[in-house]
Amino acid sequence: MEPMHTEGFRQLTKIEDAIRVFLEAVGKPKITVESIPIQDAVGRILARDVFAQSYLPSTDLSALDGYAVRSNDLRDASQTSRVVLRIVEESRLGEPCHLKIASGQAVVVATGSCMPKGADAVVMVEHASRLRENVIEVHSAATLGEGVTQKGTDFAPGRRVLRKGRWLRPEDIGALKALGLSKALVVRRIRVGVLSTGNELVNSQQTSKSAKIVDINRPIISAMVKELGAEPVDLGIARDEVREIRQALTKGLRSSDVVLVTAGSSVGKRDLVPSCINSLGRPGMLVHGIAMRPAMPTGLAVVNRKPIVSLPGFPVSAIVAFKIFVRPLLAKLSGFPMPAERSIRAVLKERIPGGPNLRTFVRVKVERVQAGFLAWPLKVQRSSSLTSMVDANGIVTIPESVGAIEAGEEVDVSLTGDI
Amino acid sequence: MEPMHTEGFRQLTKIEDAIRVFLEAVGKPKITVESIPIQDAVGRILARDVFAQSYLPSTDLSALDGYAVRSNDLRDASQTSRVVLRIVEESRLGEPCHLKIASGQAVVVATGSCMPKGADAVVMVEHASRLRENVIEVHSAATLGEGVTQKGTDFAPGRRVLRKGRWLRPEDIGALKALGLSKALVVRRIRVGVLSTGNELVNSQQTSKSAKIVDINRPIISAMVKELGAEPVDLGIARDEVREIRQALTKGLRSSDVVLVTAGSSVGKRDLVPSCINSLGRPGMLVHGIAMRPAMPTGLAVVNRKPIVSLPGFPVSAIVAFKIFVRPLLAKLSGFPMPAERSIRAVLKERIPGGPNLRTFVRVKVERVQAGFLAWPLKVQRSSSLTSMVDANGIVTIPESVGAIEAGEEVDVSLTGDI
Repeated sequence: MEPMHTEGFRQLTKIEDAIRVFLEAVGKPKITVESIPIQDAVGRILARDVFAQSYLPSTDLSALDGYAVRSNDLRDASQTSRVVLRIVEESRLGEPCHLKIASGQAVVVATGSCMPKGADAVVMVEHASRLRENVIEVHSAATLGEGVTQKGTDFAPGRRVLRKGRWLRPEDIGALKALGLSKALVVRRIRVGVLSTGNELVNSQQTSKSAKIVDINRPIISAMVKELGAEPVDLGIARDEVREIRQALTKGLRSSDVVLVTAGSSVGKRDLVPSCINSLGRPGMLVHGIAMRPAMPTGLAVVNRKPIVSLPGFPVSAIVAFKIFVRPLLAKLSGFPMPAERSIRAVLKERIPGGPNLRTFVRVKVERVQAGFLAWPLKVQRSSSLTSMVDANGIVTIPESVGAIEAGEEVDVSLTGDI
Repeated sequence: MEPMHTEGFRQLTKIEDAIRVFLEAVGKPKITVESIPIQDAVGRILARDVFAQSYLPSTDLSALDGYAVRSNDLRDASQTSRVVLRIVEESRLGEPCHLKIASGQAVVVATGSCMPKGADAVVMVEHASRLRENVIEVHSAATLGEGVTQKGTDFAPGRRVLRKGRWLRPEDIGALKALGLSKALVVRRIRVGVLSTGNELVNSQQTSKSAKIVDINRPIISAMVKELGAEPVDLGIARDEVREIRQALTKGLRSSDVVLVTAGSSVGKRDLVPSCINSLGRPGMLVHGIAMRPAMPTGLAVVNRKPIVSLPGFPVSAIVAFKIFVRPLLAKLSGFPMPAERSIRAVLKERIPGGPNLRTFVRVKVERVQAGFLAWPLKVQRSSSLTSMVDANGIVTIPESVGAIEAGEEVDVSLTGDI
């Protein structure tokens, strides 16, 4: 059992206060943009509103395979009152139509053909019979505009087609293409330095008997950085020595927009990261020790206008702290909100206790049942258990003011995996 | 107004029947796997169960900064009954610990240090005072296992850590790394040929006066293919000529696992795709004309054991048909389910009519309100309107048997974008 304690911190800061102080100190970021080929732009953030410059379609088109007609001619057409029309031409797909039809005439059209002048409706093939080569008999009424896609239906000049800040989707790529664009102006990917610290860490396992531990924080954090559309920069492993940590942080501050450093974040004598950060520049550590579990020993800092997040060493804690603090940071730096996290409502199957005056994040397994969703708290909640994170597909948050959530209560579950 | 008609199809197949017939004809796929570096494996499908071969941690570790002790010595320790222990050594991080402690002894440990033999609990720094260099006084009881991460807490030999079929997440990458692996066996990406047909299509706009239309289906469909973890293969644009379409399809069948072809899918005289498919091999077109709107003129085919989906030419229809038919196809070909689509419950703000005996897919705009979510059907629902897809962030499905969903009813919304 982990006893209730503040892990050596004299004072804990509430999560919202921590984020506010941190983001204020980060200041107004300089958003830089880049122009990239449209086909590479899915998942990127659009940097500027996109307006149409022309009409799409650029002229009236047939929306059906059939006959372009004057609707007036067919106002009273029916099975018992058939109307005979003469076919004067065919409007071929992809070719301009310079024709003009008069009363009693029709033009063969396909879906997407230009409408001839004078025509204001399309009769579908099934509503007409060919009497002779150039004569049809229509047995169904036509109304003005029926079967026609009007010029400018999709876009007209000046229409805002896409709003800046949008995370571009496949259909948006289609819209950009349809506007005649080949490049999109998107927010440059935020560069995020990822550093691990710890004498015990190695990049890969040598022997199973070794007392060394494979560093899993960098691969996990780097992958999470990519998921948020940013670009991880590998800063390697620093040993628990002031010189090494300072050197690696300095390199990170030079090469990246943000530095994330895992472990060494607490208040023990081996926890060198906070003092190293403070030694590098002002204002240094802004918040250290957060009223949350896991990830209490998280630190938030700014050095020479660049943000640094000191994440706890246990992977579970690092992951939770990333979700809570790095997401809003990257949103601020990129100038636009992150896409929402997936969440669902589920009924809690077992009571879960919170921590007094702490916000508690509980790993759960969500299952679909007849009536909705059930969430089971995983037995092992220690932050040292990576398995608990791997086995979980969701996280339930217990507010600071709540002692426990009882079995049977409905909760919001932030999904971390498929159900 | 689009009149109610079957677009020239004599018979429409229900969606579920169409999928069943199609997937049966596709047969049991040969799942091929590949071994890739773990850091590239996020978003890939794990091909084999992964079992632990050793213990993680490989020995008992301290979970705290403090003192490794024998819990028996401290069973009755308290503020008023302090226990004095002698520090005999320090267990350094990342170094093996060959020590053994006796009663009355303690070893300095950090979070992650190996536990010395004989020790079975860790007293945190705050619960002890240093009396002299090598003597501490403990003022809190310790229980067996307290402050210790047991050998094998995360993994023990034989434990299944990850199940095959999982779409790997950042935390799973961590688990694979922690197991000492450097590569992961994943399902090879399905290669999906993407072909557009139509005389009116061009790759990019030449002049705004041109009667040609920029092909947006290929970029949209290719991006959707990537989102499902598959690899698009660009088959270009074929003109509406049997020879060109056959050639492009043949090339696609040779280079890809699946071919998606847009436009020319209906029953008009210019709709050459179905007959071209039939001319290439057996069994050919299995289903043609689906009881759905949009995307009724969708065709499902198998030629020489390779699936072909004939998608309608309007981008909205192609997107909807992709979601309905290509998702389950790719799941079958990759051997494992696709990740669930995001969906929410929302209250419908306006009545939306369905089609008799058709499943109708309605583009909606979802907004968050105090009480939950509201869904507004977009005014323009024509499949020729790409804008309606771009402006929508969700799709509501109206079952075949339902004439309309009334305003105020709660519906499932499949999310296509952020709210």
